[in-house]
Amino acid sequence: MAGTVRTHRALDVVDLSEGTEVTLAGWVARSRDMGGILFVDLRDASGVIQVVVDPSELPEAEQLRMEYCVAVTGTVRPRPGGTSNPDLATGDVEVGATGLEVLSPSDPLPFMVDDRHDVDELTRLEYRYLDFRRPDMAARLRARAAATNAMRQAMASLGFLEIETPTLIASTPEGARDMLVPSRLRQGSFYALPQSPQIFKQLLMVGGVERYFQFARCYRDEDFRSDRQLEFTQLDLEGAFWDEEDVRSAVEASIVAATAAVRPEASAPGFPTLTWREAIDRYGTDKPDVRFDMELTDLSEVFEGTEFRGFGGALAEGGVVKGMNAGALGLSRSGLDGLVERAKELGAAGLAWAVAEDGGSLRSPIAKFLSEAEVAGVVESLSAETDDVLLLIAGPWRSSSEILGQLRVDLGKPKGHDELAYLWVVDFPVFEETDDGGLAPAHHPFTAPHSVEEMRTDPVNALSRAYDLVLNGTELGSGSVRIHDPAVQAQVFETLGISDDEAERRFGWFLRALRYGTPPHAGFAVGFDRLMAILVGASSIRDVIPFPKTQRGVDPLTGSPSRVEEAQLEELGLDVRPEIKAAWEAD
Amino acid sequence: MAGTVRTHRALDVVDLSEGTEVTLAGWVARSRDMGGILFVDLRDASGVIQVVVDPSELPEAEQLRMEYCVAVTGTVRPRPGGTSNPDLATGDVEVGATGLEVLSPSDPLPFMVDDRHDVDELTRLEYRYLDFRRPDMAARLRARAAATNAMRQAMASLGFLEIETPTLIASTPEGARDMLVPSRLRQGSFYALPQSPQIFKQLLMVGGVERYFQFARCYRDEDFRSDRQLEFTQLDLEGAFWDEEDVRSAVEASIVAATAAVRPEASAPGFPTLTWREAIDRYGTDKPDVRFDMELTDLSEVFEGTEFRGFGGALAEGGVVKGMNAGALGLSRSGLDGLVERAKELGAAGLAWAVAEDGGSLRSPIAKFLSEAEVAGVVESLSAETDDVLLLIAGPWRSSSEILGQLRVDLGKPKGHDELAYLWVVDFPVFEETDDGGLAPAHHPFTAPHSVEEMRTDPVNALSRAYDLVLNGTELGSGSVRIHDPAVQAQVFETLGISDDEAERRFGWFLRALRYGTPPHAGFAVGFDRLMAILVGASSIRDVIPFPKTQRGVDPLTGSPSRVEEAQLEELGLDVRPEIKAAWEAD
Repeated sequence: MAGTVRTHRALDVVDLSEGTEVTLAGWVARSRDMGGILFVDLRDASGVIQVVVDPSELPEAEQLRMEYCVAVTGTVRPRPGGTSNPDLATGDVEVGATGLEVLSPSDPLPFMVDDRHDVDELTRLEYRYLDFRRPDMAARLRARAAATNAMRQAMASLGFLEIETPTLIASTPEGARDMLVPSRLRQGSFYALPQSPQIFKQLLMVGGVERYFQFARCYRDEDFRSDRQLEFTQLDLEGAFWDEEDVRSAVEASIVAATAAVRPEASAPGFPTLTWREAIDRYGTDKPDVRFDMELTDLSEVFEGTEFRGFGGALAEGGVVKGMNAGALGLSRSGLDGLVERAKELGAAGLAWAVAEDGGSLRSPIAKFLSEAEVAGVVESLSAETDDVLLLIAGPWRSSSEILGQLRVDLGKPKGHDELAYLWVVDFPVFEETDDGGLAPAHHPFTAPHSVEEMRTDPVNALSRAYDLVLNGTELGSGSVRIHDPAVQAQVFETLGISDDEAERRFGWFLRALRYGTPPHAGFAVGFDRLMAILVGASSIRDVIPFPKTQRGVDPLTGSPSRVEEAQLEELGLDVRPEIKAAWEAD
Repeated sequence: MAGTVRTHRALDVVDLSEGTEVTLAGWVARSRDMGGILFVDLRDASGVIQVVVDPSELPEAEQLRMEYCVAVTGTVRPRPGGTSNPDLATGDVEVGATGLEVLSPSDPLPFMVDDRHDVDELTRLEYRYLDFRRPDMAARLRARAAATNAMRQAMASLGFLEIETPTLIASTPEGARDMLVPSRLRQGSFYALPQSPQIFKQLLMVGGVERYFQFARCYRDEDFRSDRQLEFTQLDLEGAFWDEEDVRSAVEASIVAATAAVRPEASAPGFPTLTWREAIDRYGTDKPDVRFDMELTDLSEVFEGTEFRGFGGALAEGGVVKGMNAGALGLSRSGLDGLVERAKELGAAGLAWAVAEDGGSLRSPIAKFLSEAEVAGVVESLSAETDDVLLLIAGPWRSSSEILGQLRVDLGKPKGHDELAYLWVVDFPVFEETDDGGLAPAHHPFTAPHSVEEMRTDPVNALSRAYDLVLNGTELGSGSVRIHDPAVQAQVFETLGISDDEAERRFGWFLRALRYGTPPHAGFAVGFDRLMAILVGASSIRDVIPFPKTQRGVDPLTGSPSRVEEAQLEELGLDVRPEIKAAWEAD
């Protein structure tokens, strides 16, 4: 729809024949005076077109400034020979203006509305409406809408119903990161904003819905380090009478649709699968970036019976020796020692480096402790070629792998920056050990274990039917087969050290729901902001969220959050604590 | 997708040939023992199918109870002659069970899971997951998903981008109905939940987006009378370089799509237009139910120079006499007097009834005061036929019309209950007079007036470029052409008695945005819950919202809102007021 104010959009002009009269409307992206004639780049949402204005005939043109909003009437014509602009979709044509109306003038701009100038992010957020006019940001808004639409169509075509779940929900005692909403009708009571629709989508399954999805707004009151936001969007889905294979295939369909909509030039993605144990073992992380190899290798066999105490001691304690070929890094001695420092920062007792030399020998601070067979074993196991840097670490399997895995990410480089490497990681542990020696759910407490028996007898090693989707080393989302048997759910709570009373108090209404013929069910949630950021090549999710907050949770445009009037708080039965008010007054 | 647990869904069986082996999964909707053989109605999301089980071969069948979740393996076969069930899509076939597994048993049910039993709403909400299994509610969930999808496709095909706006926004001092969210990083400060995305969609227009839409969750902390909810959903849209005609055509496209998706049997709706003045004049309301006529008629000319003081006095004061033919109601004298009482409750000084008699006379308490010409004029103007009840009222134009309009709604009956009568009402006043004699925006303060000049010189009578969409006498949504000129916006604030300082404090950042080349723009918001309620014939929006709150804002399923722990409030810098805590302890 062009809209009443104009007859066509900029891009439409390409398809019009010479001499067609048009009215266009948009913004002055650029204006050059060439010998008394103005060449105006008029930008609208469809693109840019050149408008030629003779100010002696249209004196209004004299007042035009950058980003004025104007309507132009004129005639379509080819650009004169040699003046075509191949960079522009409309580069072969122009409009000779016969009428010009300033719809809305613009104050001088805080920054240039183009992609050629770097603008401080705070300023961009304060003037987000001008930021949207930059071609990059406009393209991101379009890409997000296109991906949303494509994913929705993929889900709908698989028979999923989009169902809205509430965002004013019950706060649970474990909801330390819940954002709260005070109730006015019931003063002193609070709703919570959902961290996810988890419970509600499981209730939909109990309700026989069978196939649910939703683009769901979720909330999490946490630190904004590592590129998070108070509110974020996930593609949330759940199904009954299916299992992890079905879930993964539905998720893949939605991801393929989004990828095709936004990155049609990217090759159709594959979705290889690793178990959690393999992922840690080979990449030292549960979210491996598989755009490059540089895999970790277990060298424990090579060092079986070694004289080198640094390695032998670790093996004797049931640990491992792991190595990684980081390639020909060309690092100096101090560069190599820097890696050792980095490993120690990451919690390693030590790290050994070795540089492969001609003839199969190793240059390394530990070379003198190693037997010939060990050197040969390392070189062979790590396929070392001359000048390759080899990194070796010894200690417990998981922490050693993870430290080496972090060095892998520090040092590795994807082969092509355009590649999209999706990956499933499956079979996570059911529980993680907490700092105080207890157990916490690795995923969430509604995740089904592979074996109830194993979960009871060996909870630390028990595996769950949970799965994560990883893209280019970033966790895109996670899901699981859920517990549908109330007795198994009770067993999980017991293992977590939650008493029957406490379980009843915290989850009673949910446990009750499970007792009415709950079908086997499983689901997933895709972090949509993160997916979009990677698909459009943005460095932060803030670049794909239309109106994000800063890392301090502030909106520089509207000034939220802000103080409110005493009367409003009184209606809610609340008071700001005296120490906070005192701090205000001291300001 | 059937899902791994089963090979087919119930409805799929219709298309299978006799002898096909299937595994189905679903719920026991009914089970009848016929001479030792069980006839089980197995229900899944696709429908119901009859499964025939011989408990002597499948002893698990003995334990089956209502709403057990089961998987059944068996063979497709036609039902024996004469036992087909024409009410069922699968009524010609059945599955002879060869295997049966109870996936999940069910406790005894709090209510029957069918549409034949009326269930108390509070119980339905407490067990919403069982309520969803009732065919009516399941159909409503499907209808809502189908309508959402159809409207989205309609918007996308018109070139609209779906863009998410934030839900943690700035609270403004006039936001008395804002729901607040305390900030943890900035203690004592608050975000607000949006009553609508109004400001953000206007910022998107400033940003050059041109065509925006969103299914937006909105929040309003108000009384729940008249079927409202704390959170609700609207189809929100906005466009630039267009006007009210364009907006209406885009809204109509989305409404037609939703209607076709949910009520394909309803005739294609038309969208007639009334001005606000006509609507009040002819129907006594700005949201007329035009499924029936019974229009109001201005009888002022008939009573020009009347001797009857009750009417003459009103006319002398610049008022009107209005009448309505309510048809042959067959009311007794006390029934007719009841209408007079009702009118007085509604604020009328009085109401006159008259019953048309053979020969053009009127039976009425006021008959003796009327001239022959007046009686004839009334009979003719109201096209009165014998036994028709005529209602007459005199007084100021608007209040008289509105009281008669309310009686019209009380007494009128739509011809067919299936009819969908959409209607546009346009040209609302810019302002409404407040009880204290001031002015308030009739729509919102960003609505463009038809004439800036008129708005300044005669604000009470100035008309705006606002429009409402009405369906069957319910307001479905509203919109307007917005002000895009900061000077006009300032003029509106001035007329509202808002000082420059106050405007700057409340809307400064928005007024600033308008100064950067804001395009002419206009938009709309459709109350989606209300649309769905009418389309599916539900009596409350609670029946089309998956997890609604009660009229007290409570969720009987999860118990929200609830008290939270002291530590959580401390993190937010808040205290529950002592008087509230005291009331808790007194409980």
